Amino acid sequence: MNEELVRPAVKDIPDYVPGKSAPGAIKLSSNENPFGPSPKALRAIAKAGKGLQAYPDQMSINLRQALASRFKLPVESFICGNGADDILQIIGETYIKAGDEVIVSKNVFSVYELIARLYDGELVFVPLRDFELDLNAIAAAVTPKTKIIFLTNPNNPTGTIFSASQFDAFMKIIPESVLVVVDEAYAEFSASKDFPKTIDYVKSGAKVLVIRTFSKYYGLAGLRAGYCIGRPELIAPMFKTKMPFNVNRLAQAGAIAALGDSVFLKKTYQNNLTEKTRLYREFESLGLEYKESEANFILVNIKRPAKDFCQELIGLGVSVRPLTSFGFPEAIRISIGTPTQNKKLIAALKKAL
Amino acid sequence: MNEELVRPAVKDIPDYVPGKSAPGAIKLSSNENPFGPSPKALRAIAKAGKGLQAYPDQMSINLRQALASRFKLPVESFICGNGADDILQIIGETYIKAGDEVIVSKNVFSVYELIARLYDGELVFVPLRDFELDLNAIAAAVTPKTKIIFLTNPNNPTGTIFSASQFDAFMKIIPESVLVVVDEAYAEFSASKDFPKTIDYVKSGAKVLVIRTFSKYYGLAGLRAGYCIGRPELIAPMFKTKMPFNVNRLAQAGAIAALGDSVFLKKTYQNNLTEKTRLYREFESLGLEYKESEANFILVNIKRPAKDFCQELIGLGVSVRPLTSFGFPEAIRISIGTPTQNKKLIAALKKAL
Repeated sequence: MNEELVRPAVKDIPDYVPGKSAPGAIKLSSNENPFGPSPKALRAIAKAGKGLQAYPDQMSINLRQALASRFKLPVESFICGNGADDILQIIGETYIKAGDEVIVSKNVFSVYELIARLYDGELVFVPLRDFELDLNAIAAAVTPKTKIIFLTNPNNPTGTIFSASQFDAFMKIIPESVLVVVDEAYAEFSASKDFPKTIDYVKSGAKVLVIRTFSKYYGLAGLRAGYCIGRPELIAPMFKTKMPFNVNRLAQAGAIAALGDSVFLKKTYQNNLTEKTRLYREFESLGLEYKESEANFILVNIKRPAKDFCQELIGLGVSVRPLTSFGFPEAIRISIGTPTQNKKLIAALKKAL
Repeated sequence: MNEELVRPAVKDIPDYVPGKSAPGAIKLSSNENPFGPSPKALRAIAKAGKGLQAYPDQMSINLRQALASRFKLPVESFICGNGADDILQIIGETYIKAGDEVIVSKNVFSVYELIARLYDGELVFVPLRDFELDLNAIAAAVTPKTKIIFLTNPNNPTGTIFSASQFDAFMKIIPESVLVVVDEAYAEFSASKDFPKTIDYVKSGAKVLVIRTFSKYYGLAGLRAGYCIGRPELIAPMFKTKMPFNVNRLAQAGAIAALGDSVFLKKTYQNNLTEKTRLYREFESLGLEYKESEANFILVNIKRPAKDFCQELIGLGVSVRPLTSFGFPEAIRISIGTPTQNKKLIAALKKAL
């Protein structure tokens, strides 16, 4: 690296380690939809192709209107991004000044840390507690310099959630000066009646930004579409800092169609619930410790080096994710697949264990 | 705006003003390919749709390999982005520290300014000289604090180029400590034998980054794909700061196909040259001053308020771009269309003048 040229923060940025795809192996390593993309989205994309010489709508207005009517919020409460990563970057570039404290949990999805470093925020790491976000410890870490708290619910890679009552208690003690960002990339998979109603906080005018994505539930990770929900005064400055044409035309068209693809979404939801329960039983019969999950993946403690184990599994035709880069060198994250995929997974696990 | 919350730089960011599209009007306002997207790209996109549930390749390796063999440079000399805007942002987040001076020409494409502000660079604006980038004045503006110089060749919105000999003379006096970024979004349209060979500078190890895009010549503005060429040591740290999955799957597949769509590209190139000459003659017969262009658009001095004039043209079925937001309130930028589109343009101009 050109140490004299690059920004000092760059050297501290950890490499992003993606889930592996291996030729011939079932990919259960990146929490993608095992049924493929939403078929309605694919049809919308095919129709939109002819206009690809033209720039996308800078304001993603049609997609934001679809979201507005879905969430019963004004269109000004939404901004769309090139995936949720782009939303995180827009939040960073809009709100993080050099020296602002940014609270992030340890051992979670790494892009929060990346964003804090890109905008010279002071990272404050709070450990998980029994593989769950520790809202009490996070609240206790707030100082007058705290600008942003990043929460993930359900959490990645542990699959756990904090409850509505836990979030309510948390919000009561967080000062008005702090922006609470809740990344709900996996929220659609949760069956918990106790899942926090973050949108009600947005409606009541709290300093809460909620992030959602089309990458998981809607099966469109390859297309890149995510969005952020917040009160309009928090969203408006984000339109100034985003790149003008950040959301491609096919993503705008495909995401709108996917929102209305109820057959596909129901199938996705039901399969995830049914297969999750089945995988729990299989893990138990294999004597494997796992964490109960509200997402489309399960953290499993394999009590041996995860990287080697996952390499062996690839040899057996299944790719899952070692959590080494997350700081759990003996745990793996398994995305919940179709019944057929999960059977192959279990067969491979039995051989490898 | 939440003045107490947002980064101080945000309030100084100008709004991005896109080219207008109006229902029923021919769009000659955003320098898009008048023949639509590359047909080969469309076929590749249709094939790639089925894999859209999966994340894109983080490294864009296939696209970078296609570029590497095209330019006869190592694959490590390339990084791809969500359009050239994303490349600009990656350059900013990798290289601009707070207080670094960033030299930008006045009255040009506004994203350089946006990027400098997002990373708290000190903007140094250098005026154009007779509608052209003034390389002498830019070189004279360099100080020990200068980090980056942004050049655009051909320039937007003037269509002018600086020549190989001008660039050679410029590079001789720019210190080694400065990164010279040359945005060549429109380079493929230039017929000039004197167009600078920036790639030779990359090959020789100079601190030069060249930006190209699939948005113009290849007809894929709606898909978002751009790339940057530089020596590997300059490119490597940019992979650390970019968002992991910045280039969508369809863009990676479509861009590779477009690169090889020689029939479409030849048609695009020839039409642009032929129609440019024809438009020059038409402008002359209308008594309109214009700037000779090496790009796919022409700056025309209409000597009256451009916004009103362009609104009137929309009423006559043609949308062109007023250069008010660029600081030329009496000039318009006309994208070169197909023969049919240009005939309608000329007819509309005759009525409106």
